[in-house]
Formats: sequence, C-alpha cells, structure tokens
Amino acid sequence: MTDTELYERAVAAAARAYAPYSKYHVGAAALTHDGKVLEGVNVENAAYPLGVCAERTLLSGAVVAGYGPGDIEAVAITASPCGGCRQWLYEFKVGRVVFPSAGDLVVRTTAELLPDAWDDL
Amino acid sequence: MTDTELYERAVAAAARAYAPYSKYHVGAAALTHDGKVLEGVNVENAAYPLGVCAERTLLSGAVVAGYGPGDIEAVAITASPCGGCRQWLYEFKVGRVVFPSAGDLVVRTTAELLPDAWDDL
Amino acid sequence: MTDTELYERAVAAAARAYAPYSKYHVGAAALTHDGKVLEGVNVENAAYPLGVCAERTLLSGAVVAGYGPGDIEAVAITASPCGGCRQWLYEFKVGRVVFPSAGDLVVRTTAELLPDAWDDL
Amino acid sequence: MTDTELYERAVAAAARAYAPYSKYHVGAAALTHDGKVLEGVNVENAAYPLGVCAERTLLSGAVVAGYGPGDIEAVAITASPCGGCRQWLYEFKVGRVVFPSAGDLVVRTTAELLPDAWDDL
Repeated sequence: MTDTELYERAVAAAARAYAPYSKYHVGAAALTHDGKVLEGVNVENAAYPLGVCAERTLLSGAVVAGYGPGDIEAVAITASPCGGCRQWLYEFKVGRVVFPSAGDLVVRTTAELLPDAWDDL
Repeated sequence: MTDTELYERAVAAAARAYAPYSKYHVGAAALTHDGKVLEGVNVENAAYPLGVCAERTLLSGAVVAGYGPGDIEAVAITASPCGGCRQWLYEFKVGRVVFPSAGDLVVRTTAELLPDAWDDL
Repeated sequence: MTDTELYERAVAAAARAYAPYSKYHVGAAALTHDGKVLEGVNVENAAYPLGVCAERTLLSGAVVAGYGPGDIEAVAITASPCGGCRQWLYEFKVGRVVFPSAGDLVVRTTAELLPDAWDDL
Repeated sequence: MTDTELYERAVAAAARAYAPYSKYHVGAAALTHDGKVLEGVNVENAAYPLGVCAERTLLSGAVVAGYGPGDIEAVAITASPCGGCRQWLYEFKVGRVVFPSAGDLVVRTTAELLPDAWDDL
C-alpha cells in the first residue's frame, strides 16, 4: 500500500467522524508492520476538552487490536496533527506520518514533528 | 449476553491495556443494540493528561465501526468510570453501565452517574 | 460572602474567557476556607480536546496560589459542571458546588455530583 | 529579567505542583510584554487524562489575569514541553520558550517546537 493509498483510506474514514460541535471531520489510517490497515476518526463531546482526535482514536484502537509501540509503519491523516497527537505518534514510534500541506502530501518522522522530545520509558 | 458475561469481556480486555506509567489496567466492553460486542482499554501517554481511558477508547472505536449515540445497550467496565468518561457514556446515550462496587457488580443509568447533566445537541 | 455573591463573581469572570471556537463563555469562582476568592474561565484551543474548562482553570490557579485539596469551601460556576470537572471538584474535596439549573441556583456536594466515586490517595 | 532568571522562577514554582500520582513536579513561568511574571505548575488528577500540565496552568492563569495571545514574551519550563502544551504555546503566540536540554538552557520559537502547525483563527 502506498502512502497515497493510505491517505485515501484516512479521507474515506473521515466521513464517519462524530463531530457535531465543530463540524470538522478528521480521518486517520495506520499501516501496521504486519500489513493490516486500521482507521480512526475524531470523536467530540459536548464538553469540548473531553473529545479525542482521530490519531488517538486510531492508535488506541490499534492497542485494543493488540498492537503497541513499534508496530506501526505509517499513519496518514487528513490534516496536520495537533501537538497532543504528535506526542502519541512519538510514543508509538510510528515510522512515518503522512498529511496534506499546501496542496501536497508531506511525509514526516515523529522526531521532525516533535523536536526536543523526551523519553520516559 | 448477560451483564456478568459482558463484564468478563471487559476483564479479559484489560490485559491489553497500554499502561506503562500507572501500571493500572482498565478494560471495558460494549454490547450494541444489534448484538455486537466491542472492547476498549486505557492507553496512557508519557504526558499523562494526553492519555485516554478505556471507556473512551471503547466508544471512539464504536464510532470508527459505524455506531453512534443511541446504538449501545450496555457498557461494562472493570472499575467505576471517571467523571470524564461518564460524560462520554451520557453523550452516547448508553442504556446501562455495569461496574464493580464493594465486591458486587452494580448497574447504573448515565443519568444516575451524571446527575444535573445538560444536553447541547 | 453568600453563594449568590460567589456566583456573581463567576458570572463577571466569564467575560474574560478565551473561547474563540465555541463562543461559549464559562466563569467559575472559589471561596477558600481562609476567605480568599479566586476566579477561573474556560480556555479553548484550536485543537479542541486540549482546551481546559473554567473549573479546572480555577482549581489549578488555586494550586499555583498555594491551595490544595480540603482548602476550598465553595465553587460557583455559570453552568452545570462537566463530568471531567466533577472529578476535579471531587479531588479537591470542595465543600459545595453552586450553579444554575432551571432558573435557580442549586447547591450540590461533590458526592452528589459524582456518585460511586473512588479514591486513590 | 533574563531567561535564566525566568527559568529560576519556574524551578521555584515547581515545588507547589500537585503531583501525588506521578511524583513528577513541573514548574513554568511567563514574562508578559508589560513586565509581569506569572507562574504555573502541573496539577494531576486520580483520573490521569484529566490532569493539566504546568504550561497550560500557566497560560490559563494568564487568561484569568486578562492576558491573551500575543501578550507573552517568554515562557520558561523546568522540562521540554509535551506536544499538547506546544499547541498552547503556539495558540498564545508566545515569543520564545526556554527549557533545559542536555544540561543547558535552550531557547526555541513555537514554530520550531511545532513545525507544520496550522492556524484556525
């Protein structure tokens, strides 16, 4: 699966977002090292700070499915990840992160997205 | 599926929690109105406030799978839900919530768990 | 200071909320056991889940000012607290919580707002 | 006030952190463009994801005190900021961010800490 195909999965997933407050639908898709594709969407809450972004829905779903840090080759997102999600992508040692920027798809490492990051484990 | 059986699914799921910081593993399981069982676990992050509880992992996974508010009959959890998760259970209009208390399983409505709640939609 | 006066402080504080996304301004005010009044407002973020509610702004400001669990007699809020904030009010053992409901001010204990709560410390 | 002096204020503030769960105390200090120094500390909760980091306590306290985006010249922190807090530092257009790295104090812009960031307002 190419990065562009993975991104198209993220775009398709976004239609299932639960975003009745912002009306802003985000989708995400992950390719695991064993070749499985997982999806995530943002899920909002009437109390805005309790919502969960698409990348975190995606990665927490990956954990439920038995995956953990180091198991995910790539994540594609329909928008540049927020700082909170960058910390998750970093925690899960995702190989590369794909998202649109200025009309193109860009590819970043988690270290590029979160310079000066620290490790606790 | 009985509430006790759903709770046992939550207990089994807890083993897959990603909780390297607190070492406190939580599991959750949902029974949808169309008879499917979904699972969730807590997923922590090195930056503690960025973590996601088991109930929110569960319900956001349900959204990814195509479910929404009103589609879930019961949620069982291995511990009493935190306030943040009660707001999610309320948002999703979960029919009943099952968790252990003082050695027994108790069953609560979301209105009982979150009295004086408000609705935005 | 009466509960109504404390509530009026919360209403006045709400004007300083940073809520450019939801346009929904919330204010909160605390009366400490040593007679000081502190204020809080909701502070939103472009990434909605990273925002902080007024009650948490209030109580975290109280910690910065040297207060902790057991030091706060009452908290008044311009709206019923979300579940996440109820967990904070419970953590800080706030004596009573005041907010509008159906045209009146109501007064609740944190145990009433968060039944079946657990304690970790 | 020099960046080193601001950092020392952050270090002193850290002693007031409410961190009974992680035991990890973080302090932060802000210098406003009108010359005031504000402080923040991390405030944890028994439900870990409901906690608030020091930088967000600091900036939400600044909002309560009447400051907003563009009003803060520098923020010093006792540790490298998490991704969630970088999003807040970015939202508030903080001029520079100071924190220890490999034994030295480093100074970063919010754009350096959060490359490829987006703006909603």
